[in-house]
Amino acid sequence: MASGTTHGTDTPARRAHGVHSEVGRLHKVLVCAPGLAHRRLTPTNADDLLFDDVMWVDNAQRDHADFVKELTARGVEVVELHDLLAATMALPGARDWLLDRKIVPNEVGGGLVDSTRAFLETLEPRRLAEFLVGGLATTDLPDEFRPAYVALARESTGVREYLMPPLPNTLYTRDTTCWLYGGVTLNPLYWPARHDETLLMKAVYRFHPDFKDSTVWWGDPERDWGQATFEGGDIMPVGGGVVLMGMSERTSRQAITQVAAALFEQGAAEHVVVAGMPKLRAAMHLDTVFTFADRDIVTLYPRIMDGVHTFSLRPGSGRFPVDITDEGSRAFTDVVAGALGLPDLRVIETGGDVYASERQQWDSGNNAVALEPGVVFTYDRNTQTNALLRKAGVEVVTIVGAELGRGRGGGHCMTCPLIRDPVRF
Amino acid sequence: MASGTTHGTDTPARRAHGVHSEVGRLHKVLVCAPGLAHRRLTPTNADDLLFDDVMWVDNAQRDHADFVKELTARGVEVVELHDLLAATMALPGARDWLLDRKIVPNEVGGGLVDSTRAFLETLEPRRLAEFLVGGLATTDLPDEFRPAYVALARESTGVREYLMPPLPNTLYTRDTTCWLYGGVTLNPLYWPARHDETLLMKAVYRFHPDFKDSTVWWGDPERDWGQATFEGGDIMPVGGGVVLMGMSERTSRQAITQVAAALFEQGAAEHVVVAGMPKLRAAMHLDTVFTFADRDIVTLYPRIMDGVHTFSLRPGSGRFPVDITDEGSRAFTDVVAGALGLPDLRVIETGGDVYASERQQWDSGNNAVALEPGVVFTYDRNTQTNALLRKAGVEVVTIVGAELGRGRGGGHCMTCPLIRDPVRF
Amino acid sequence: MASGTTHGTDTPARRAHGVHSEVGRLHKVLVCAPGLAHRRLTPTNADDLLFDDVMWVDNAQRDHADFVKELTARGVEVVELHDLLAATMALPGARDWLLDRKIVPNEVGGGLVDSTRAFLETLEPRRLAEFLVGGLATTDLPDEFRPAYVALARESTGVREYLMPPLPNTLYTRDTTCWLYGGVTLNPLYWPARHDETLLMKAVYRFHPDFKDSTVWWGDPERDWGQATFEGGDIMPVGGGVVLMGMSERTSRQAITQVAAALFEQGAAEHVVVAGMPKLRAAMHLDTVFTFADRDIVTLYPRIMDGVHTFSLRPGSGRFPVDITDEGSRAFTDVVAGALGLPDLRVIETGGDVYASERQQWDSGNNAVALEPGVVFTYDRNTQTNALLRKAGVEVVTIVGAELGRGRGGGHCMTCPLIRDPVRF
Amino acid sequence: MASGTTHGTDTPARRAHGVHSEVGRLHKVLVCAPGLAHRRLTPTNADDLLFDDVMWVDNAQRDHADFVKELTARGVEVVELHDLLAATMALPGARDWLLDRKIVPNEVGGGLVDSTRAFLETLEPRRLAEFLVGGLATTDLPDEFRPAYVALARESTGVREYLMPPLPNTLYTRDTTCWLYGGVTLNPLYWPARHDETLLMKAVYRFHPDFKDSTVWWGDPERDWGQATFEGGDIMPVGGGVVLMGMSERTSRQAITQVAAALFEQGAAEHVVVAGMPKLRAAMHLDTVFTFADRDIVTLYPRIMDGVHTFSLRPGSGRFPVDITDEGSRAFTDVVAGALGLPDLRVIETGGDVYASERQQWDSGNNAVALEPGVVFTYDRNTQTNALLRKAGVEVVTIVGAELGRGRGGGHCMTCPLIRDPVRF
Repeated sequence: MASGTTHGTDTPARRAHGVHSEVGRLHKVLVCAPGLAHRRLTPTNADDLLFDDVMWVDNAQRDHADFVKELTARGVEVVELHDLLAATMALPGARDWLLDRKIVPNEVGGGLVDSTRAFLETLEPRRLAEFLVGGLATTDLPDEFRPAYVALARESTGVREYLMPPLPNTLYTRDTTCWLYGGVTLNPLYWPARHDETLLMKAVYRFHPDFKDSTVWWGDPERDWGQATFEGGDIMPVGGGVVLMGMSERTSRQAITQVAAALFEQGAAEHVVVAGMPKLRAAMHLDTVFTFADRDIVTLYPRIMDGVHTFSLRPGSGRFPVDITDEGSRAFTDVVAGALGLPDLRVIETGGDVYASERQQWDSGNNAVALEPGVVFTYDRNTQTNALLRKAGVEVVTIVGAELGRGRGGGHCMTCPLIRDPVRF
Repeated sequence: MASGTTHGTDTPARRAHGVHSEVGRLHKVLVCAPGLAHRRLTPTNADDLLFDDVMWVDNAQRDHADFVKELTARGVEVVELHDLLAATMALPGARDWLLDRKIVPNEVGGGLVDSTRAFLETLEPRRLAEFLVGGLATTDLPDEFRPAYVALARESTGVREYLMPPLPNTLYTRDTTCWLYGGVTLNPLYWPARHDETLLMKAVYRFHPDFKDSTVWWGDPERDWGQATFEGGDIMPVGGGVVLMGMSERTSRQAITQVAAALFEQGAAEHVVVAGMPKLRAAMHLDTVFTFADRDIVTLYPRIMDGVHTFSLRPGSGRFPVDITDEGSRAFTDVVAGALGLPDLRVIETGGDVYASERQQWDSGNNAVALEPGVVFTYDRNTQTNALLRKAGVEVVTIVGAELGRGRGGGHCMTCPLIRDPVRF
Repeated sequence: MASGTTHGTDTPARRAHGVHSEVGRLHKVLVCAPGLAHRRLTPTNADDLLFDDVMWVDNAQRDHADFVKELTARGVEVVELHDLLAATMALPGARDWLLDRKIVPNEVGGGLVDSTRAFLETLEPRRLAEFLVGGLATTDLPDEFRPAYVALARESTGVREYLMPPLPNTLYTRDTTCWLYGGVTLNPLYWPARHDETLLMKAVYRFHPDFKDSTVWWGDPERDWGQATFEGGDIMPVGGGVVLMGMSERTSRQAITQVAAALFEQGAAEHVVVAGMPKLRAAMHLDTVFTFADRDIVTLYPRIMDGVHTFSLRPGSGRFPVDITDEGSRAFTDVVAGALGLPDLRVIETGGDVYASERQQWDSGNNAVALEPGVVFTYDRNTQTNALLRKAGVEVVTIVGAELGRGRGGGHCMTCPLIRDPVRF
Repeated sequence: MASGTTHGTDTPARRAHGVHSEVGRLHKVLVCAPGLAHRRLTPTNADDLLFDDVMWVDNAQRDHADFVKELTARGVEVVELHDLLAATMALPGARDWLLDRKIVPNEVGGGLVDSTRAFLETLEPRRLAEFLVGGLATTDLPDEFRPAYVALARESTGVREYLMPPLPNTLYTRDTTCWLYGGVTLNPLYWPARHDETLLMKAVYRFHPDFKDSTVWWGDPERDWGQATFEGGDIMPVGGGVVLMGMSERTSRQAITQVAAALFEQGAAEHVVVAGMPKLRAAMHLDTVFTFADRDIVTLYPRIMDGVHTFSLRPGSGRFPVDITDEGSRAFTDVVAGALGLPDLRVIETGGDVYASERQQWDSGNNAVALEPGVVFTYDRNTQTNALLRKAGVEVVTIVGAELGRGRGGGHCMTCPLIRDPVRF
C-alpha cells in the first residue's frame, strides 16, 4: 500500500490480514473520515440516508482525526478509506472496473452516462475517491459535461437526483466487510442506500496489492442476495473458533445460515452463537448493546440483552452442513462464556439510573472497541458507563462524540479491524 | 389459455395482445382477486407490505368478483392471476423454473430449502398458486416438512419470517407489467417487497401459451435494475405513438429514459410525455391524479397536477438516441393534447369543496379505467366526481370500494389491459 | 324530552337515568350520527382530529341508522346527539349559555366574535346543532357576516382556521359522559381536540328537562383538570358496586383516584378495579380489548390483556379516603370475577390465527355492547370472534362496520347507556 | 434582587425593566441553565418533552456558562431562572402560593398530595427550585414520603408518572414571557407540556421585588386560553411602536389579535406586523428563520420567508379596536422596513449552497441575538452564515452549540431580554 494511505508506523509492512478475537492486540484497522457525504446531509434527506441528524463536518473531521491520531500513537496502523480508494483508483484497470459498474444507465440515467464518465475521467484519483464516497450531484458537473438530460435529474425526487449516491454510512466501516479469523466477508447490507459501499470495497479487494490476495469467505456486491443481508455491527469473531452473530433487522437468518455454512465448510469456525435480537429500534446491531472490553469483560444494555433468544450453530453432516441448537432460556452471556471455555463473563451494564442508562445506550455507550485486552475506546459523553468500566480495571480512552455520535454509531462501528491478535481463554 | 382461467365469452381465442390507447374498447384484461396475502395483513405489518389499512377479505373478494362480473358482462375477457399462475404451474418446466428461483437460500434460509421445496412439490397447481401470491409462512409447513431450522425463522423479524413473501400488491396488476402498443414491459418495481410480483409474471410470459410469444420491450426480474424502477400506474399508452410517463417516487428518470430509448429503437412509440410529479405523498402514481374517461376527457386532481413539470422525449440521432425538450411552463394537459393532435382536453376536476376533493382523490376518485370511449369504472364512494363525469356525458359504472380501496388503488390500478383498441383523434 | 329526539317506543317517558351493569337490559342510550364533522375529515387533517382514515359519510350514516333501527326495534329508546342538542338549543337560556362559552376571543379570535355570534343567532336550532358538532369554518360564514379579520383566519394553520372546531369523535358518545349507577360524570377528555364535546353535554345536562336533574358525581368542562383525564371507553359499571377503570394513555391515575374518591364518598360504589394497561397503541381504551357479552362472559384480546397490572381501590378512612391494593400477579379477569362474586369469568378470545386476531382487535372485534345478558352488537367484519361468541351461546347482532369502523371504535364506543338494568351474580 | 441571582456588574440596581428594540444595548436578560430536566430526557420521552435528541448535560452546562460569562463580561446583567426561583421561594407566601397550585390532585393524583407537599416543604429553596424546573419523579420521593399510591404512578404511562413534570424547554426563556416596551406578557404556550413554565414565572412576577411591580399587558397562566397561544419566539418589539408577530403553529391569530388590542388600548404599540408563516415544520417560530443583527440588518432563511403572507394591525375605532390591512404580495421585509421608516432592510441570507443553508437553518443559523447594534451572539457551527454576517460588518460572538443546539433553539431562543435600549431609525 502506498505510504500515504497509512498513519501507523511500527507494524510490519505486509503482515497478513486476519482478526482472531474481539479484544486481542489491534495492529491494523480500516476507518473512514467524515467528508463530502456528510456535507450533503440535511434534515430533509437525513432519513433517506439513514442518519438521525446533521453534523458539523469540520468538527467531526477534527474529532475523527484525533481518534486516528490516538490509534496511531498506540501503534495501530490506520488505513483511511478515501486514501485507500484513491490509491486503488490509481492502479491499472481499477478505475475502469469500478466506473463500468457505477456509471451505467440504471444508476445515472439514459443520456448522462457518457458525459458523467467523461467528467470523472478528468479527475485525479484523490478527487475521484471523494466523489465515490461523497456522491456526485448533477450540480457537480461542470458546464462542458452537462447535456440537456440533466434537466430531468433536477426534477426527480430525493436521492435519485444524484449521478452517484452519497454514502455517509461509510463512516461505519465495521458494517461493510468483516474479517473473521483468516478471511473476509463482503457484506450485502440491509438498506439499498448502502449497497454501493460494498462495491467500493470490492474494487479495493480486487485491485489493491495489500488486499487482493485475501480469502473471501462469503459475499459479492455484484450478486443479488435477496433477504440474505449481513452487517458487521452484528458480527464478532470472539476467538476460539467462535463467532457471535446478532440476528436483527439488518442481519437476517438467511445470511447467518449461509455464512455459518461457509465458515464451517472452509474450516474457519466451529461454533456460531446467534443472538436473536428483540424487535426494538434501539436494538439495531448487536454491537449497539453488547461489546467486549477485556477477554472476560463485556459491557451491555440489559433492557435489550435480557430479551435475546440464543441459538448455537455447529458443523453438521446433513445436506445442509449446519446443526442448530435452540438454547432456550439460557442467557446469551452464559452461552458465550461456555463457548469460550470461561466460567462466566463479567458484565458491566450501562451506567446510571433509568434515564442515564437509556441515554447512554442511545449515545453508543456500549459500543466500545478494544485496542488490546482491557483497553478500549468509547465516546467521552457516556461518563457513567466509562466510570464503571474504569472501576472494573479497564483503561478507557475517549473519543469526542458530540458530532461523530449523531449517526448513532461509536468506536466499534467506526472501525473495521484488519489485523488483530488472538487472546487466550 | 385454459378455459378455466377466463371469464369473458365473446373475444377471439387467440387475438394478439396489444394495448393501443387508454380509452379504446377493452377486450382482455388481467386482474388479481384478493386472497391469502390480504388475510396476512395486520396493523403491525401493513406498512412493510405497503398497505394503509387491513381489509375484510371476504367482502373484498365479493366486491372484486362483482367488478369482474361486470367486465365480463360487458364483453371483456378477464384473466385472473391465481388462475393464470395455476395454469402456468401445470405446464412442463414452469414449476421447476419458478421454484428454482424462489426456493433458494437467499430467500428461505439455509437448512430450509429442501423441506420447503419438498412441501411445495406435494401441492396441486391451484394451491401452489395461492402460496405463490399469498406467501408461505413457516406455520404453513406441515410437521413432516419442518426441520429444526424453523426455530430461527420464528425468531427473525417482520416479513422475513416468511419462506415466500406475501404479495398483497398483486391486487394492482397495473403496476407489474405494461402493454404498450404491441409489446410489454416486465417492470422492476420500486419497493423490494414487490419484487417477486414481476418474477411470477415472467414465469407466465415464459411458459403460458397465450403469453410466451409476446414481444418484451424492456425489463427482466432476474436482473438488478438499481435506480431504474418503473411502475405501470405511471404509464399510459394514450395512442398515436404517444406514451405518458409519470416521473415519481416509484418511476425514475433512470427507467424512463431507458424505456423511451427501447420504444424508439423498436419503433414502438414516437413521443414520450414525462410528467415530473411534485414530491408529495398523495402523488404516488400519475394514475392516482390523472386518468382518461374519453378520447378527449380526463379527470384530474388540480392541486397536484398544477405542480407537474413536463418534458417531451422523442427519437434522436445521438449516441443516446433520445432527444429531450423541457416544456417549461406549458401545462401537462396542453402538451398531451398537442401530442394527440387535439385542440385541448376537457378536464373534469375532482368534485366538491376543498374537503371533498381531497377526500375523493385519497379514495381513488381520479383513478378511472375505461371500458371504451366515454364508459369508465370508478369507486362508488366518490359520488361528487362521478356526478361530474356523468354530467359531462361519461357513463360511470361503479365498483364497491369500501374494502378494495384500502390499499389506495382504484379501477385503473386493479387492471392490466392486455388487449385494447386504438382510438381516432 | 321532545318526541323528535327519541326513536324508541316502549319505555316509560320519565324513568330515571341510571346504568347498573354492563349487560343488564338496555332501556335508553345516547348515540351520535355521522355528519358534517366527518365530511370535513381529510387525509391531511385526520391525525389532528384523531381519525385514522376518512369515511364515506353517506354510507356511514346509512349503517348508523340501521344500528339505531335495530336498537329501537328491540325496545331501546335511542337519543341522538344532534336531535338532543337541537332540542336543547330551543330552550330559553341554553343557546346564550353555550354561545357565551364558545364564541369568545380565545376560540374565534379578536374581531370575529360579533359577526360569528350574529350569524349563529340567525340559525334555527337544528342547523345550529349541526355546526356545533360539525364545526364552523370561515367559509361557512355568509358574506354579510364576514369582516376583514377573516383573512387572518385563512392564513392560520391547521384546525385553527375554524371558528368552532369540528368534533368528529362525538360519534363515540361512550367517552364524553359516563352513567355509573345513579349518577353521571362529565369527563375531561385527553386530547384538547375533544374538549368541547363535554361542553356540549354540559349544556344538555344544565338545560334539557330529561337531564337537568341528574346527579353529577364528578367533572365539569368549565374547569381545568390538568393531568386528570377520564374517558368512558375505559370505564365499566359492572354491577354490585364495582366499577372497572382502565388506566391508559387517556384515562389517568390523577382522574381515577379522584373519581374513586367521589364515588366512595357519595356511596355510589364500593370497589374500583383498575386495569393498568400496557403502553401500546392498540391498547387505547379498556373497551378496545375487553368487554362483557353476558353476566359471566367476556371477550378479550389476550396479547394485551395478559400485560395488564391490576389494582383495587376501596373506601378508606385516611385523609384521602381510598385504600389501594396492588393485586400483583393476579389476572385481571380473576380479580373482576372475585369482585362480582363469581367463581370465574368465561373468556372468549379474539378469534382466528395470529393474523386474524390482530386484525379483528384492530377492527373493534372485542368492542361488543350488550342489549341484555347474552345479546350483543358487534361489527359484521369480525366473523371469527363473532362465531366464537355464538358458539358460547351469545346472540350476536351485527352492525355494518366498513365505514363506521374507520375511527377505530365499535358498538361499545358508539353508545352511551342512559338506562340499563342491574344483573344478578 | 438578591445578589446571588445576578452575574452582571455595571447596570443600575433598580433600573426599570423594559425592552424597546431588538438590537439596542442589552442591559439585563433572563436565561435558564440546563439541568435536571435535561438529565431526564431519553430517546423514549424526548418527543413528549418536545426535544429532538438527548444532550450531554455536563457539557451543555459548561457551554451555557460560557455564554453567560461572555454576556456578563460585556456588561449585561444576567438573571438565571433557577437562581431567580430559589430567591422567590425564599420569600414569604411565595412557596405556598406556588405549591398550592402545583401539588393538587389534578397533577399529582389522589392520595399523593399530602406526602408530596410534605417532602417539598423539607427542601431549602435552591433544591426546591431544581425540582420545580427539573420535575419530581416518584422515585425522587424518600421512603418516608412514599404512600402506597405511588404504585399506581409507576404503572401509568409516559410523562404522567411525574408528580411535577420536567420542564426542559425552560432553556428557551424567550418563549414564556415577553417584554414589549414597558410591560410584559405571561404567555399561554402551545404545548400542554410547557404550561407550567408560565406558572413559575407568574410566581416570580407576583412575589419577587424586582418583578412584582411590572405592568402585565396580557396573559395569566391560571386562566384557560383555549386556542389563544402565544410564544415569545414569534414576537419582536423592533422599536418605534412596532411589534412583529409570527403567526405560526404555536402563536395563533386568536392570541395575536387579543395582544394587539391590549397593546393598542394601553398605548404600548401602534403597529403590529403579522408574518403569516407557511405550514412547514422548519418554520416553528419567526425567530428560527428571521432575526435582527443591526438596526437595518436582518439574517433570514429565504426558502421559508419567501412564503410569508403579511398583515398589518393598527389601532381602530370599531367595537374590536383593531384595524387590519392585508399586505398582499408585499414582501415581509418591505413592510417591516416601511414600518420602521427605513428605505429597506439589508438582508443576510443563510449561507452556503442548498445543502449548507438548510443545514444551518436547522442548526439555528438565523437565530441571532444582539448585544447592541451590530454585535450578535450565534452558534459556532454555522460558519457560513457567520462569515456573511461578519462580511457585512457585524461582530459575531459565538456560542458552542454542539449540545445546546439539540433542542433546536439558539441564542435568541435562550434569552429573554428584561432591559434593552431603543434604537434610532
